[in-house]
Amino acid sequence: MSLLEETVRQIVPRDRIAETAARERLDQLTMPHWALGRLMDLAVELAGMTGTKKPDVSRKSVVVMAADHGVAGEGVSLYPTEVTMQMIGNFVNGGAGINALAKLNGAGVHIVDMGVNGDLSQFMNTESIEVVHIGNGTNNIAAGPAMSEEQAVKCIEAGIRIAIELGKETDMFGTGEMGIGNTTPSSAIVSVITGEKPSDVTGRGTGIDEKQFQVKVEIIEKAIRINKADPSDALDVLAKLGGFEIGGIAGLILGAASMRKPVVVDGFISTAGALIACGLCPLAAEYIIAAHKSVEKGHIAALAKLGKKPLLDLGLRLGEGTGAALAMNIVEAAVRVLTEVATFDEAGVSSAK
Amino acid sequence: MSLLEETVRQIVPRDRIAETAARERLDQLTMPHWALGRLMDLAVELAGMTGTKKPDVSRKSVVVMAADHGVAGEGVSLYPTEVTMQMIGNFVNGGAGINALAKLNGAGVHIVDMGVNGDLSQFMNTESIEVVHIGNGTNNIAAGPAMSEEQAVKCIEAGIRIAIELGKETDMFGTGEMGIGNTTPSSAIVSVITGEKPSDVTGRGTGIDEKQFQVKVEIIEKAIRINKADPSDALDVLAKLGGFEIGGIAGLILGAASMRKPVVVDGFISTAGALIACGLCPLAAEYIIAAHKSVEKGHIAALAKLGKKPLLDLGLRLGEGTGAALAMNIVEAAVRVLTEVATFDEAGVSSAK
Repeated sequence: MSLLEETVRQIVPRDRIAETAARERLDQLTMPHWALGRLMDLAVELAGMTGTKKPDVSRKSVVVMAADHGVAGEGVSLYPTEVTMQMIGNFVNGGAGINALAKLNGAGVHIVDMGVNGDLSQFMNTESIEVVHIGNGTNNIAAGPAMSEEQAVKCIEAGIRIAIELGKETDMFGTGEMGIGNTTPSSAIVSVITGEKPSDVTGRGTGIDEKQFQVKVEIIEKAIRINKADPSDALDVLAKLGGFEIGGIAGLILGAASMRKPVVVDGFISTAGALIACGLCPLAAEYIIAAHKSVEKGHIAALAKLGKKPLLDLGLRLGEGTGAALAMNIVEAAVRVLTEVATFDEAGVSSAK
Repeated sequence: MSLLEETVRQIVPRDRIAETAARERLDQLTMPHWALGRLMDLAVELAGMTGTKKPDVSRKSVVVMAADHGVAGEGVSLYPTEVTMQMIGNFVNGGAGINALAKLNGAGVHIVDMGVNGDLSQFMNTESIEVVHIGNGTNNIAAGPAMSEEQAVKCIEAGIRIAIELGKETDMFGTGEMGIGNTTPSSAIVSVITGEKPSDVTGRGTGIDEKQFQVKVEIIEKAIRINKADPSDALDVLAKLGGFEIGGIAGLILGAASMRKPVVVDGFISTAGALIACGLCPLAAEYIIAAHKSVEKGHIAALAKLGKKPLLDLGLRLGEGTGAALAMNIVEAAVRVLTEVATFDEAGVSSAK
């Protein structure tokens, strides 16, 4: 049995007994009933994920999957592809958005070269980059499949392996990514899996203008038309329309779910990865927490397909895992409510009349 | 000149030069333009509040103003008034929602007896309670004014003094409150100041049913009818319809603004306090950050009057300052983006084509 098959088999539903125990405690906390709303809903889910009414999410890792995209040559982004590699330097030096936000919330940042088109040897004196490097970027999806099915499996299994390795020191994962051009494959994936039209799930990415936007939509339409991915076969969708980092994210989610650990999914590209993961194993959705509502137009359709409501809505559209790092504080808050707030009995406070 | 007059005079607009300097830096950060959305808007405002492009909000205090309300005798809450005092015990023992969330985000919790109807001497062996105690709860607003104008000034000036005292060790304030019955005076204040009908700004508070809700709306209508508060005179509104803790919150906000420190305003009751503060000094609004959108029906109208959009929307309706404590993490994130993320030049990353 392959690692992918084995991992999918290990994913089980959340523990309903732990959820009930958590709900019973939350019902008795010294506050009007369920007065902390979504924090309490989330606390129940976290109990179910971890199988205990005292979950611990204190050790946090954000994994930033990086890769390049052949389709970037079609002019779908404001930035040249070199920026993927340059931003890895920025991550290593601690100067990027994800560094600042992960540090604030006590999360480690782990960079993975899933397939960057460039020489990363200058950054290899650091332990913070893991090299998977499936290839020098995907093929142009406007001309054919992004990668072979074998490569698609490799991406996902790399993500699983990273989750398992980091799982030794991680209670909660966050997904992140870097890859110039990667909203284009993400929109293609979201369109195929949700059935929405490309123009309804395509956004401005790095900030392209109306003319470039029209080009981007046409490229996505063409990629979908020529590749004919089977919406019911997530591996086929990934291989034909994906990115190496999107496959890595899908694997990370499957790996986290197999270990019964929560995974905070960042924005649009990460959610495309989540759609692949849940296409391979629908139960994986039970371990996913949607961090935030991205500015990217297709994000809400993708989240709706997963049955997820985002925690934050702050107009973010950066990626890197920044929204996940922010939302981790809300997840920790949910746990603290469950584990630290006293019940009416414990505190000697009168309950409702 | 009174302390209140002096404080109002000290409140100046945000520093537009510091805001411009912050905006110029944020424009150059290694990310697509303004890709961290509201974090960046907030970072600009924080620069303006503090008058520096390197704001520091690391020392945080949540002030929980507690008081009782004569109107609670009218059956507007699910809980008996003793709960106000009992919850103070819970705060002191660290068992309440605010303790858990403030601890998570590194904020101190300061409890103030603004006018609790009960014997708090059992908690006085602790330094965490400040005693102002304007009276044993307000008078019943359904029968006459809540307090005298002199008492209204006393509440506000107590809040100012507490802000100034805590200001020595606080960069960012959060408002909080505890007082059984206090959504009733808050709805009355919000109705009078915004001009909305009582039924449109009255919610279910601790969780009352439809019948109690109708009673609550009638009580608020009666309080407004018999007290005839002048909407253009915030002190009059506070005296006739207020609560001691609502006045304390107004004072805390004025005090924070006079020191050019941001103040994160929690939910519905805190926002009623903010309306009083901004009625006395409209410029105080420049130092207010709206933490979250409460479940309480009148909150959005109150925030709209202040020109504020909340940071979080998590279905909270607890008060105590819990939403403020949570939102403080978002405020810190905004500062970290401004002060820790590298520019394109600093990081050697190519900017947009």
